Amino acid sequence: MNILFIMYDQLRFDYLSCAGHPHLETPNFDRVAARGVRFTNAYVQSPICGASRMCFYTGRYASSHGAQWNGFPLRVGEQTLGDHLRRAGMDCWLIGKTHMKADAEGMARLGLTPDSLIGARQAECGFDVWIRDDGLWAEGPEGFYDEKRSPYNEYLKDRGYDGENPWADYANAGISEDQIASGWMFRNADRAANVREEDSETPWLTSRTIDFIDQAKGPWCAHVSYIKPHWPYIVPAPYHALYGANQVPPARRAAVEREDPHPVYGAYMENRIARAFQREEVREKVIPAYMGLIKQCDDQLGRLLDHLEATGQMEETMIVLTSDHGDYLGDHWLGEKDLFHEPSVKIPLIIADPRPEAEATRGTTCEALVESIDLAATFVEAAGAPVPDHIIEGRSLLPWLRGESPAWRDFVISEYDYSASPQAEKLGLAPRDARLFMVYDGRYKLMHAEGGFRPMLFDLEKDPDEFHDVAKGSDHGAEIDRLYGLLAQWGRRLSQRVTRSDDQIRAQRGASLRRGILPFLWDGSEVPEELTERYRGPARQRHTEG
Amino acid sequence: MNILFIMYDQLRFDYLSCAGHPHLETPNFDRVAARGVRFTNAYVQSPICGASRMCFYTGRYASSHGAQWNGFPLRVGEQTLGDHLRRAGMDCWLIGKTHMKADAEGMARLGLTPDSLIGARQAECGFDVWIRDDGLWAEGPEGFYDEKRSPYNEYLKDRGYDGENPWADYANAGISEDQIASGWMFRNADRAANVREEDSETPWLTSRTIDFIDQAKGPWCAHVSYIKPHWPYIVPAPYHALYGANQVPPARRAAVEREDPHPVYGAYMENRIARAFQREEVREKVIPAYMGLIKQCDDQLGRLLDHLEATGQMEETMIVLTSDHGDYLGDHWLGEKDLFHEPSVKIPLIIADPRPEAEATRGTTCEALVESIDLAATFVEAAGAPVPDHIIEGRSLLPWLRGESPAWRDFVISEYDYSASPQAEKLGLAPRDARLFMVYDGRYKLMHAEGGFRPMLFDLEKDPDEFHDVAKGSDHGAEIDRLYGLLAQWGRRLSQRVTRSDDQIRAQRGASLRRGILPFLWDGSEVPEELTERYRGPARQRHTEG
Repeated sequence: MNILFIMYDQLRFDYLSCAGHPHLETPNFDRVAARGVRFTNAYVQSPICGASRMCFYTGRYASSHGAQWNGFPLRVGEQTLGDHLRRAGMDCWLIGKTHMKADAEGMARLGLTPDSLIGARQAECGFDVWIRDDGLWAEGPEGFYDEKRSPYNEYLKDRGYDGENPWADYANAGISEDQIASGWMFRNADRAANVREEDSETPWLTSRTIDFIDQAKGPWCAHVSYIKPHWPYIVPAPYHALYGANQVPPARRAAVEREDPHPVYGAYMENRIARAFQREEVREKVIPAYMGLIKQCDDQLGRLLDHLEATGQMEETMIVLTSDHGDYLGDHWLGEKDLFHEPSVKIPLIIADPRPEAEATRGTTCEALVESIDLAATFVEAAGAPVPDHIIEGRSLLPWLRGESPAWRDFVISEYDYSASPQAEKLGLAPRDARLFMVYDGRYKLMHAEGGFRPMLFDLEKDPDEFHDVAKGSDHGAEIDRLYGLLAQWGRRLSQRVTRSDDQIRAQRGASLRRGILPFLWDGSEVPEELTERYRGPARQRHTEG
Repeated sequence: MNILFIMYDQLRFDYLSCAGHPHLETPNFDRVAARGVRFTNAYVQSPICGASRMCFYTGRYASSHGAQWNGFPLRVGEQTLGDHLRRAGMDCWLIGKTHMKADAEGMARLGLTPDSLIGARQAECGFDVWIRDDGLWAEGPEGFYDEKRSPYNEYLKDRGYDGENPWADYANAGISEDQIASGWMFRNADRAANVREEDSETPWLTSRTIDFIDQAKGPWCAHVSYIKPHWPYIVPAPYHALYGANQVPPARRAAVEREDPHPVYGAYMENRIARAFQREEVREKVIPAYMGLIKQCDDQLGRLLDHLEATGQMEETMIVLTSDHGDYLGDHWLGEKDLFHEPSVKIPLIIADPRPEAEATRGTTCEALVESIDLAATFVEAAGAPVPDHIIEGRSLLPWLRGESPAWRDFVISEYDYSASPQAEKLGLAPRDARLFMVYDGRYKLMHAEGGFRPMLFDLEKDPDEFHDVAKGSDHGAEIDRLYGLLAQWGRRLSQRVTRSDDQIRAQRGASLRRGILPFLWDGSEVPEELTERYRGPARQRHTEG
């Protein structure tokens, strides 16, 4: 079996028709959901691209792998899906975005160069690279955001889109009065991107994926990782015109949220992107474009599914659809992601396992508390290997797909390191104090903030919209204590004993004794003779003088 | 300045005359204490050789580096004193024991071989090896405990001590009725080891150290790491006869400790070594030998100090004396180390800094709560480099040596992973549940045990002997909660963000903006023109058809 592990960037859990979106039809997502299980309580371990992805790719919490924000390098030697799957006999390929930053200093310290196979995999988060493009070929006075070459930008140039940065000038810009109308500016979000639809990013990556599939020898895992519907919010025709302001759901926000908010939440509500999304005109421009981008993703997913069917590979391919985090889109007075309200931290997750043992669960949903780190475990098990649970902290989801009810976790954790953000500066925080933790048990969601702040608490049973921070009152002390207890339990987790498995430890029990370590003997009669025989015999004299 | 970082193995904090031992005179330890500061509240991060040493050598907690017990390999790429000091222009040499187990699997994964310089340092915990000998050339039916060559054993063979294992047959054995009287058997502890005193382990390693010093070009840090007074408890003449049963302090233990003990403590009290040390005849045989071993260490320390003085190096050498953990010696009904009573987890620590700024503190003691991980930070600062506090979790002790009163920690943490022990088996624990944590705030000492056990709590102000586990009663709920809060705080510490320093993070703030990332613009008027100029200009048309 092969694994098609498809990730969209910044795709909200609720912007799919199978998840109940009132206006957006996503028949191809729904088609996969009908073949598999849709997980309705799946959470990312960090609601930000880079950190979240490193959790997916390592199967480990952000605090465990340490790449806790965009641009923090994943340290050399940290094991990834690629390490685990190749050990299990499955290739592991990248097609698209990872947001991986190589640990150049660590690689140099260990003498690894990116032009060696080992070095290349270290630099690419364990993947073999079919194509890598992180999708943001942005450029400012200090140069390009992405230090690497952009194959997509090169593709555009080859296709006749001129200039230094056709990604910005065509694919992510419309036209207004004969001027570039950049997709960075929300005012332009309703324009058609000045690119042929087939040349835009999502179809381009889909074509690269089909190229991959057509030559691949299994078993393989292909991580197809789209940049969209991530900003810049602009989409080519006809998708730019499919949705209008009347299909924009009302912002899920309440005045009470602005009354004495938690200081960190308050700082985020005042940042530039939040202030922008607090304006209805922004939402009415952006959200239809966001929906158009998703619709394009759905159509391209259909292309992929059709190709698998046409080539007879559907029955030997596990298909996984997910996202690295959501998008506030003005909910809770916020834009972007970063914090732990559902639109940010919850993700869509659909897994279709073609094998007969998954027959009974096709088309069902699963409410179990799922963490994004579970996918690494799932894929390792799907590849036929035992999950190295001293390294991978997630748990395989395959039992759910088989219709079993495994013993399962009681709470999910998410983390957010905002030390490099303007909010940390504004709050006057040292980098290590600019960290947030979420504990969610399926009903109560606690946010702990380092730096001496009070917590936030939501009761999602009574307040599914998360408007009422009940940590402000005095009624929920017991729940807060309980959730802090869960966070403490998680804090003591075993996460770094990556060089010794439980099985190896069990085998180690008693080995010292059998290798001559006997620090408890009075005269040797306490143990079988064979343990002491090497320490007995006639006394001897040195033969020579030194 | 050079650093002579001397570690003894299993040396109790209170078996020195400067620490108040009633019968043992250690004039050379005292001589260093008179030149420096003796830290009276220094604790190891794990009371077991291998894990403790990896904490010393990385400056990181056991849960942070993951080598949580003897024989758990330190994962490849984990940075050590050697990495930090060499970066600061100081060599870092090993002379003696480390208990380092190389991460052979990780090294192979990264293509590192032990015969390369980088590979050798990875395999040797970052040290350049002057001489490595872990000191236990033990042998049982499954072969040797130590898989490496023993230079000391080879030395003995060269000196005419015959047989396969003169370490066992001579250096760690006496003679009884013409038979080998092995030091593994406590009955023989009062015999003289059948080795010339100058050929025994402590003088041998001292000679190797003098060889090192005589050829070394500074600045260097030399980790001189003696196996003694670690078991086997046997010592050559005249040290075997210096102390007798009348100089053995009474066991610090009380009947109340055996009444409904904490299950983990109870399991340890029933293990073989505990049962042995519960017998007075064992203590009366072993402790005089232990004292003799320490006395020999003290004499050999004198040799080293004299050599430094004679060669004019005393004024350019920082001298550090410490141990990797203590030894119960029957206190609390226990033998060995492992748990968190003071005889096990507290260590001697003396630092003599020759520089003028340390003048005011010579001969003083310091009661600050010190962790063994502080030495790595101390040495890096002594080498003139800033302490990389995103990697090294300890704090430099140099301010204390300068007579300052720095803001300091309020509690110390120690950990113990006993997953590979018979006690874990007896208690029916899965490996990850066989873990203990200590939190000590200078008065209260809490032990938390994973696996669903109640905690232990001692009030060292009222009960300095730690006989009364007050967690059993109902009076200390608030203290227990408070200490659990400290443990939770520690559990959330930032420990794995090793690829990004705080300074780098501060520099990263706002960098996305300056590199073209602008996901908050309505029309561009919100920001200086230079940030958007690359996204403006005349709209264009593709030049060719694809």
